[in-house]
Amino acid sequence: MQKPRLMTPGPAPVPEDVLLELARPVIHHRSAEAKQVIVECAAGLKDVFRTANDVLILTASGTGAMEAAAVNTVPRGGKAIVLNAGWFALRWAKICQTYGINAVTVDFEWGRPVDPQRVENALKEHPDAVAVFGTLSETSTGTGHPVEAIGKVVARTDAVFAVDGISGVGAMECRTDAWGIDLLAVGSQKALMLPPGLAFLAVSEKAWKKIDAFDAPAFYFNLKSARKKMADFDTPYTPAHTLILALRQSLRRLQAEGMENVWERHRKMSEACQAGIQALGLELFSSRPAEGLTAFRVPEGLKDTQIRGKLSERFGITAVGGQDKLKGQIVRVGHMGYMDELDVVSGLAALEMVLAELGYDVEPGRAVTAAQQVLIGPRSAAAVG
Amino acid sequence: MQKPRLMTPGPAPVPEDVLLELARPVIHHRSAEAKQVIVECAAGLKDVFRTANDVLILTASGTGAMEAAAVNTVPRGGKAIVLNAGWFALRWAKICQTYGINAVTVDFEWGRPVDPQRVENALKEHPDAVAVFGTLSETSTGTGHPVEAIGKVVARTDAVFAVDGISGVGAMECRTDAWGIDLLAVGSQKALMLPPGLAFLAVSEKAWKKIDAFDAPAFYFNLKSARKKMADFDTPYTPAHTLILALRQSLRRLQAEGMENVWERHRKMSEACQAGIQALGLELFSSRPAEGLTAFRVPEGLKDTQIRGKLSERFGITAVGGQDKLKGQIVRVGHMGYMDELDVVSGLAALEMVLAELGYDVEPGRAVTAAQQVLIGPRSAAAVG
Repeated sequence: MQKPRLMTPGPAPVPEDVLLELARPVIHHRSAEAKQVIVECAAGLKDVFRTANDVLILTASGTGAMEAAAVNTVPRGGKAIVLNAGWFALRWAKICQTYGINAVTVDFEWGRPVDPQRVENALKEHPDAVAVFGTLSETSTGTGHPVEAIGKVVARTDAVFAVDGISGVGAMECRTDAWGIDLLAVGSQKALMLPPGLAFLAVSEKAWKKIDAFDAPAFYFNLKSARKKMADFDTPYTPAHTLILALRQSLRRLQAEGMENVWERHRKMSEACQAGIQALGLELFSSRPAEGLTAFRVPEGLKDTQIRGKLSERFGITAVGGQDKLKGQIVRVGHMGYMDELDVVSGLAALEMVLAELGYDVEPGRAVTAAQQVLIGPRSAAAVG
Repeated sequence: MQKPRLMTPGPAPVPEDVLLELARPVIHHRSAEAKQVIVECAAGLKDVFRTANDVLILTASGTGAMEAAAVNTVPRGGKAIVLNAGWFALRWAKICQTYGINAVTVDFEWGRPVDPQRVENALKEHPDAVAVFGTLSETSTGTGHPVEAIGKVVARTDAVFAVDGISGVGAMECRTDAWGIDLLAVGSQKALMLPPGLAFLAVSEKAWKKIDAFDAPAFYFNLKSARKKMADFDTPYTPAHTLILALRQSLRRLQAEGMENVWERHRKMSEACQAGIQALGLELFSSRPAEGLTAFRVPEGLKDTQIRGKLSERFGITAVGGQDKLKGQIVRVGHMGYMDELDVVSGLAALEMVLAELGYDVEPGRAVTAAQQVLIGPRSAAAVG
């Protein structure tokens, strides 16, 4: 028997009751029933994203929401600052290139957080920048960026702040309005506990002003059309509405838990995972880890494919390796969405056994114990000790 | 109790076993298992579309596939001929307008088929046209266009023929390669028996030549990227892969039935529905009805909302009205996807009862009988009579 355990930084596991929503008979997307589902989802998304602004629902992967944010906000020939600190941040630059947006990249070492001071400098140097494109959780390096601090810097300028929150939102604190995020792109398949296929985009008034100022080269991803339809709780084209049905259910779950508790759960999973990894003598890749995934360097003498292959073969665990220049150098373990503390503990137990079987010098139980100590808190740990 | 019966021209009903695929635990989209699903889907789509060419899988509604076909094939400033015979044909023109493509529309009366001779004339008048944009089944009017004949005309020129097959493919004969269709856009939620959320695009060698000739303003919908990934049975970004799992199942169903039989089933449903409608003294809207839906004019003294409202209230049937300038003038009944002959007969029985209850002069049973006569064939009908 092999029991599948999805521990990738997206897609993340989906609760059974959410999956079952997908198996319900299809309804017409313009029916009163379908509209009521969108009414509820619109309210739930605002709560989860901590925004009073419109949240648009797109049938696409998260990349579609990034593209929509960029092409609708910055006209061809306009300037944008890209906070380039990983593979997915680079996607902003590629989107800009495709649409003739003049992307000024501010480069950071992969695995290091964006420095808000450098963002401030870049904005001073480029006062004509229409937008700053950043990332909440850089999935390729497992790094969480200081979006709140960057948001403060951008808010003082005329530029809008667009954030790729695809693997971040839900897995780490993100207060869209309070932090000055003008465009927040989110995907369904991460901490929102859904299969892939939907993307979301929260848009501020400041962003709408930029959007309303020109005719964007966007049809399917035209935000003006989407806003007009959303005002009536509708979408411009036929949406993936079985996924929207499931979204309603996952939003109910998130709201029942409460976003502060959801963030806290992910923070704990993240800290426990980091403690476990380090207790094995492994090195974390990021100097400021994201809270929905943990990336560690492949130890000397082993290959990432050996570790991941054996995790899969022995325990049905899917983890992923590095992308682009990090290929073969890191392993990334997801702990977001429908996962809890015990999933992290058992994942670490599996990693210990797999490393031991691969001949790596590891003392089984050390990672588990270190994680447990994080999870039960210092006082309880002391009492047990 | 209200039993829902989806009789819209998309979304169409989805078989239970296909729906259940959606409720399976999510897997990683880059896993060997996921790749194997795409391998099978790629082969199945080729068979269903009758093409030896690449069929790309996009996470989007069918409109996304139309946009992809247009912007990747015709550069900004290039010319395209739009066969404008309905609300959805007009979408081609709107896409062109958004992306600076010079759209020459050849206008046809709504409800009438495209005349291939006029396409030929337009191509002669505009020998610089890069593409001709047409429609297999115009969902807004319930018209099937003579795509085979149009394809022959376009094939003699340097232009490529792009066809919106969204509500047509599966519901009516469509032989992509034999008919000279260079770009075929299809949506998941029609005769392919899936929920909305996926789109497909078959691309010919002739079309690839146009696509390879320039850098299209397309990132999410970039066909070069999609082709590159599809060569390895992958997609450029995270696809809606629970829908792809379901696609495999629906393709298995279509292939088990055999496409000729699938087309024949729809042809029979269509003829039976038309006969029933006419037996009630109602007027078909289209002079060349499509085979996945039937549109009829709202009879004098009644409103389309009354008919549709009562169909829904009494029998849980969802039918749709007219769009744009046809609003209030027609009722459109879908019979595509997971529907069979008896669904059409019972739908007509419901229509008879509803019309009678609304005070329309109708003899209950006439539509049903007319449909039955179509379905059992002239000889059997004579024997019974």
